[in-house]
Amino acid sequence: MIYFDHNATAPVMREARETWLHATENISGNPSSPHQTGARAHIALREAREKLAHFLGCHANDIVWTSGATEANNTVMHHFSRTLDVKSEVWISAIEHPCVDESAKHYFGKRAKFIPVTHDGVIDLDWLTTELTDTRPGLVGVMTANNETGVIQPWREILSICQSYEVPFFTDAVQWLGKMPAKDLGQCDFVSGAAHKFGGPRGIGFLKIPHKSHITPLLVGGKQEQGVRAGTENVATILSMMAALEIREQQMANSQHILRGVWRENFEKQLLRELPGATIVGAKSPRLWNTVSALMPEGAQLRWLSKLDKAGFAVSTGSACTTGKEEPSHVLAAMHFKPAEAHRVLRFSSGWETNESDWDALAKALAKIHGEIYHAKT
Amino acid sequence: MIYFDHNATAPVMREARETWLHATENISGNPSSPHQTGARAHIALREAREKLAHFLGCHANDIVWTSGATEANNTVMHHFSRTLDVKSEVWISAIEHPCVDESAKHYFGKRAKFIPVTHDGVIDLDWLTTELTDTRPGLVGVMTANNETGVIQPWREILSICQSYEVPFFTDAVQWLGKMPAKDLGQCDFVSGAAHKFGGPRGIGFLKIPHKSHITPLLVGGKQEQGVRAGTENVATILSMMAALEIREQQMANSQHILRGVWRENFEKQLLRELPGATIVGAKSPRLWNTVSALMPEGAQLRWLSKLDKAGFAVSTGSACTTGKEEPSHVLAAMHFKPAEAHRVLRFSSGWETNESDWDALAKALAKIHGEIYHAKT
Repeated sequence: MIYFDHNATAPVMREARETWLHATENISGNPSSPHQTGARAHIALREAREKLAHFLGCHANDIVWTSGATEANNTVMHHFSRTLDVKSEVWISAIEHPCVDESAKHYFGKRAKFIPVTHDGVIDLDWLTTELTDTRPGLVGVMTANNETGVIQPWREILSICQSYEVPFFTDAVQWLGKMPAKDLGQCDFVSGAAHKFGGPRGIGFLKIPHKSHITPLLVGGKQEQGVRAGTENVATILSMMAALEIREQQMANSQHILRGVWRENFEKQLLRELPGATIVGAKSPRLWNTVSALMPEGAQLRWLSKLDKAGFAVSTGSACTTGKEEPSHVLAAMHFKPAEAHRVLRFSSGWETNESDWDALAKALAKIHGEIYHAKT
Repeated sequence: MIYFDHNATAPVMREARETWLHATENISGNPSSPHQTGARAHIALREAREKLAHFLGCHANDIVWTSGATEANNTVMHHFSRTLDVKSEVWISAIEHPCVDESAKHYFGKRAKFIPVTHDGVIDLDWLTTELTDTRPGLVGVMTANNETGVIQPWREILSICQSYEVPFFTDAVQWLGKMPAKDLGQCDFVSGAAHKFGGPRGIGFLKIPHKSHITPLLVGGKQEQGVRAGTENVATILSMMAALEIREQQMANSQHILRGVWRENFEKQLLRELPGATIVGAKSPRLWNTVSALMPEGAQLRWLSKLDKAGFAVSTGSACTTGKEEPSHVLAAMHFKPAEAHRVLRFSSGWETNESDWDALAKALAKIHGEIYHAKT
């Protein structure tokens, strides 16, 4: 199979596997244990925390390790539900991942308000600035880049707007981290990320919280993580995540993502040329270098999916977390796509190991399948 | 270092490491993804679920994978806080792990009531039956075996009592699973477990819930785990956990834990002989084959700890999750040990790889250190 579903999960890279293996053999203690074996784990954990803080540009103590972004994002909403006054609203974008969207609704009900997006999938900054002159929400949450379309959100601008109104800003950076430089993310008040989207293992992520602040634990019952997240620290997996992130940051320092963006551009040109009627969702917006959300000319998603699967390509319709839902994507709905259009959208998301010939093979397969569907119809 | 702190965390066994490595290489998809790579992960996950259900004696659909026992135990308390009427109590033993104890207090405050234990560390069944004739709590929670003392709780009897009063029974089986046969645990309404206590990796555990029931998710935002636990399923780690559990169950089928219990008995005899004044906590109760909680004759815990550490033995004072707390162990307090006594208690917890000569070396080291402390005093 040629894998084009990295936004769902990416394969664990060799160095991350080796790091996990080494750590489970050599750093086997519990960081809270009062002996050398525990101390070694404690030191490794501290170094990993410092490394992540360095990449994000924040203090090491601002990092809380979690079981993944779902837990991190739930923790943010839970924290604000416990600390905001009962009238405060939280404003999140209309295109957040379900684990932000649903936890906001779960904890805030109608006090969760949705920031609209344009047809190109970018949040409406005018709406935000206008609304902020009237109302001060308890939290603004906008993802760094969208998982379905790859559209990059203007998080630096949103942060600056939020700062001027003294509203805390939270960004789910799951699709950004390890694909785009982490630098400056640490300036946001709350940032979440997960390892398994960029070559680290599953079951590990983090939440960056404001400096010298405390958050309400979602998991209670242990003094770990300065009392804000109970549970034995998953040291080997944390080190594995950091091994992956370190390599990704190095690749970006060498501009290797720029080249990959060019391959993606070429694929899109090829797609539009070979499949008349196809369009790229969010084409006018800056997008992650790895994601193509394509409105296909013919046939429903599932027909394309199964034909591509047979041809050896793993692609997706949208978020894996929403697969199986009958409703069309809430992201595409927020971008004003009609349900019938949304059902024609496919997502191709490459990874660091995807090469130019993989994109080329995908374009050729799509052209071939398009021909078959076209001929079947005529 | 000779490692005697397995109740805090156990080293990941070779087979579990190899399984993780194999799975991250070969079963890399997201089980929710709509293609062959996803389907392979989906199938592997289903098989793992069936295997665990087989060991526990329950239905595969009763298993919810979690990031560990802390999450599983928090999920139980969160669920009951959302579903019980506002007057209902939950009764838990006075010796639960902090992640049960603190989450019960967090969600129920004064409606969390504590079942007393005897001086030998077993819950008071008379108290339970007497109280149940008057009051019907919403939940009874008693751990299967205690992490600090190794004392086995009469969970089969408690289950039967709870069934006769139609009260749901929850058992935290973290210290039981992989050390004692899992068989019949599935008859309890709620059961939690974690891999890293018996040679599986960290960051993975489960919650067994009652058949055909639904629980209130603690983590929302995805359709995984039948909608009760959001987050990309950690397939490689789940398979790794099951590889470890399968081997442990096989070792127990071959009665290999019985032999290890004999080694532990011999160690205790040696300890009592060499260290006049030492006693074994919970000595009169059935205990896990791996745990020794010893009230030492001289010196404070920390003095023993550092001397043992220097001599190459990793031991503990109690739960790693409470290390650093100034207060004496709540477990020893519930067993009516005075604070000064509690501060003299050390915990030695062996693992499957600990052999007879390790126990012997520990006994000799203790005798030597005792001699030094004694001479320093005189």
